[in-house]
Amino acid sequence: MLEELKEKVCKANLDLVKHGLVIFTWGNVSAIDRASGLVVIKPSGVSYDDMKPEDMVVVDLDGNVVEGSLRPSSDTPTHLVLYRNFPNIGGVVHTHSTYATAWSQAGRDIPNMGTTHADYFRDAIPCTRTMTKAEVFGEYEKETGNVIVERFAKMNPDDTPAVLVRNHGPFAWGTDADNAVHNAVVLEQVAKMAYFAIDINVAAQLKGLYVPEFSPKMNKNLIKKHYSRKHGPNAYYGQKK
Amino acid sequence: MLEELKEKVCKANLDLVKHGLVIFTWGNVSAIDRASGLVVIKPSGVSYDDMKPEDMVVVDLDGNVVEGSLRPSSDTPTHLVLYRNFPNIGGVVHTHSTYATAWSQAGRDIPNMGTTHADYFRDAIPCTRTMTKAEVFGEYEKETGNVIVERFAKMNPDDTPAVLVRNHGPFAWGTDADNAVHNAVVLEQVAKMAYFAIDINVAAQLKGLYVPEFSPKMNKNLIKKHYSRKHGPNAYYGQKK
Amino acid sequence: MLEELKEKVCKANLDLVKHGLVIFTWGNVSAIDRASGLVVIKPSGVSYDDMKPEDMVVVDLDGNVVEGSLRPSSDTPTHLVLYRNFPNIGGVVHTHSTYATAWSQAGRDIPNMGTTHADYFRDAIPCTRTMTKAEVFGEYEKETGNVIVERFAKMNPDDTPAVLVRNHGPFAWGTDADNAVHNAVVLEQVAKMAYFAIDINVAAQLKGLYVPEFSPKMNKNLIKKHYSRKHGPNAYYGQKK
Amino acid sequence: MLEELKEKVCKANLDLVKHGLVIFTWGNVSAIDRASGLVVIKPSGVSYDDMKPEDMVVVDLDGNVVEGSLRPSSDTPTHLVLYRNFPNIGGVVHTHSTYATAWSQAGRDIPNMGTTHADYFRDAIPCTRTMTKAEVFGEYEKETGNVIVERFAKMNPDDTPAVLVRNHGPFAWGTDADNAVHNAVVLEQVAKMAYFAIDINVAAQLKGLYVPEFSPKMNKNLIKKHYSRKHGPNAYYGQKK
Repeated sequence: MLEELKEKVCKANLDLVKHGLVIFTWGNVSAIDRASGLVVIKPSGVSYDDMKPEDMVVVDLDGNVVEGSLRPSSDTPTHLVLYRNFPNIGGVVHTHSTYATAWSQAGRDIPNMGTTHADYFRDAIPCTRTMTKAEVFGEYEKETGNVIVERFAKMNPDDTPAVLVRNHGPFAWGTDADNAVHNAVVLEQVAKMAYFAIDINVAAQLKGLYVPEFSPKMNKNLIKKHYSRKHGPNAYYGQKK
Repeated sequence: MLEELKEKVCKANLDLVKHGLVIFTWGNVSAIDRASGLVVIKPSGVSYDDMKPEDMVVVDLDGNVVEGSLRPSSDTPTHLVLYRNFPNIGGVVHTHSTYATAWSQAGRDIPNMGTTHADYFRDAIPCTRTMTKAEVFGEYEKETGNVIVERFAKMNPDDTPAVLVRNHGPFAWGTDADNAVHNAVVLEQVAKMAYFAIDINVAAQLKGLYVPEFSPKMNKNLIKKHYSRKHGPNAYYGQKK
Repeated sequence: MLEELKEKVCKANLDLVKHGLVIFTWGNVSAIDRASGLVVIKPSGVSYDDMKPEDMVVVDLDGNVVEGSLRPSSDTPTHLVLYRNFPNIGGVVHTHSTYATAWSQAGRDIPNMGTTHADYFRDAIPCTRTMTKAEVFGEYEKETGNVIVERFAKMNPDDTPAVLVRNHGPFAWGTDADNAVHNAVVLEQVAKMAYFAIDINVAAQLKGLYVPEFSPKMNKNLIKKHYSRKHGPNAYYGQKK
Repeated sequence: MLEELKEKVCKANLDLVKHGLVIFTWGNVSAIDRASGLVVIKPSGVSYDDMKPEDMVVVDLDGNVVEGSLRPSSDTPTHLVLYRNFPNIGGVVHTHSTYATAWSQAGRDIPNMGTTHADYFRDAIPCTRTMTKAEVFGEYEKETGNVIVERFAKMNPDDTPAVLVRNHGPFAWGTDADNAVHNAVVLEQVAKMAYFAIDINVAAQLKGLYVPEFSPKMNKNLIKKHYSRKHGPNAYYGQKK
């Protein structure tokens, strides 16, 4: 069942390696078939070298394995919380990509400092709060999903399709598995450039060089403009469809 | 028409990928045929994997598409402002290369700290001012060109063939498409080394190590010497032509 | 003798190159056959390009060469101290990998700042003390092993299978040569992300951005949870065995 | 003439690319035949893609071209000063490698912070003084050699085979062209690790973490020990010769 989706999810998982976002088995991609409510996800702890479409596991939105002989990713419950709460998303990615994870460990939102960020993410990439002891020792992976959803209470997950789980790492999502991977790649690039930008600004200031007043959020007009260049009814980036 | 120029522009766009300056569709190269006043530029949002010379779009200096079935890069109006105002340039490149973009986001000129910089750029790589609301929501891409030209009011664009657009990223130019790409590669390397140099200087000073007095501009004589070693009537780098 | 182990040790040495942990001849892997008490180790100063299983040297736990025409790695006495004192380990790796070595040179333990770290290492990666003149000019490589063992007096080497030798570089170990290499790769990644995380946190704070209170050890519950997800009787990461 | 040496010098130049130390034509390697006093060096501004042994230029120690139809590297006079003043060296390398150049731009000696450094360089990698106007506009490349020699007035160039030319970049040397390239690769790695080490130490201290007292020179005994493990009569690293 869902053979085409399994191929797409398998390829998306391999793309994480190709884009340098994961080493070993550190990462997972899933996609949902909204019609049936079934989710296809990477098996847990299987090497990317050997991964085949038929290894993908099919689960329902309650986490029951519907097809597949392997255990699904241990992060499956987090993915499911996101699918249940973010109705427009079709794919979810989790990685420990270097720079996004560093921001997660620093416990800070990634400020929207440039048009690269604004082309894909309207707001800062938010960082979740510290999880409680009860959450960690309870249904941990499900609670991880819950703190993400909580963080988006006043944010639109379609406009800012990524999050940093504190002391853990990033989740990104999108319209399908491919788009979620694309967003995860952009997130890593944005995380890298924001780090360097702040660091350059601080170092230059300490040496007495002129630096502009710093704001965690760049020129609001530029954010609005760039986001709408690529998204929404007035988008004019790319070719007509 | 302009088949040879289309091949050069297509190859120059692919060279951006080869040199690690762009991912996905984040970048564009154009070149001008000064005789006809026509500009060849990359189409908007087309994957580098599939790009062919015949996909290149030909526009006139007012932005009218003269040939090509695809939309030109959304940054075309910026390129055109540069061709109209910098009469000696033959090629323009825009990227979101990591370190140059980080300096753009930091809002700081890249100081001329070494001979690598001075071999190619006489002055600091300037960073443009913040754009106004009217500029952003008006003819945005054209106004982006205008703030670049404004920044070069007292500078020679032939001596310092690159700029940082604040909160956005770098533009570089040159005598043709190839030379513009070459300058974009050097810019990224110069941006990286200037960041590390300032950061090393700051960190060493904070640990009480000797560091020389810091200046945003190194030894002026060395700048003049290195620039003239490679450029102008007394250049002696490379082979006789 | 021990032909199978020689092949594994040779391959593990070559994997160090593949994972980017060593250049030239800077690194060595060994493995022990606990039944015979014999250790297979890389020869000293031999290029990775030419290395073959039959070049591996067999030594006993006192360092006597039992088989092999080449000199064993000059770090052999350090490996032997670890095998004698850490009874559960089967493989040892030494590298000068960039970020782990930088922490060694900084003289600091790598704090446990995220789940990537906690998935593999229960505690901070400890840094050894400065060696005395007598230790350095005595049996230096053996004493290097001794300061590592001293540093683990109150720590379990099976739970935290890596160490930083001050002003030198990392040693990692594991159940066999392959697992030790795996841990060395993770150590380098963890060293990189911890550096960036602290640096981001500091830079953001200096610019007046909100950063959470910093602790050298993240949420203790999260550490315990993640370590036990992968290790021990209640592990549920990966496939059933 | 000197066909074998030309092959070695050509290969050594190409190795700079392979090791990631140069882009475009930014770097040059030479070697000397001490018997004849002739030096083989890379031609100026020739692409590495097309470089062949027969392109190498032969010059005498006064800089006269003895064989070759191309101009020698514009840095030839610097190489010649080094050969004339450092009688034991057989090869010289100049690059603009990223981290070593960043230290040159920061104007700081690279402190000897670890055994990786001490295995190859007994002292800090020294940075030359700022060149005077007369030096820069006089025989610039020759004067560049002179400030290097001046910097080694109280240092042994055989023990510390590299230097940073201020606001420019590194020169390294060795017993032959290959060994000089080897030292240039190590220098870049050492420059990278020293930067990260100081930066980690500073960042950790600013966050209130324990860091050891910092010294620009690590444990002196360890330096002496490691240098003598690899060099001199009591060396025991590598295989017997």
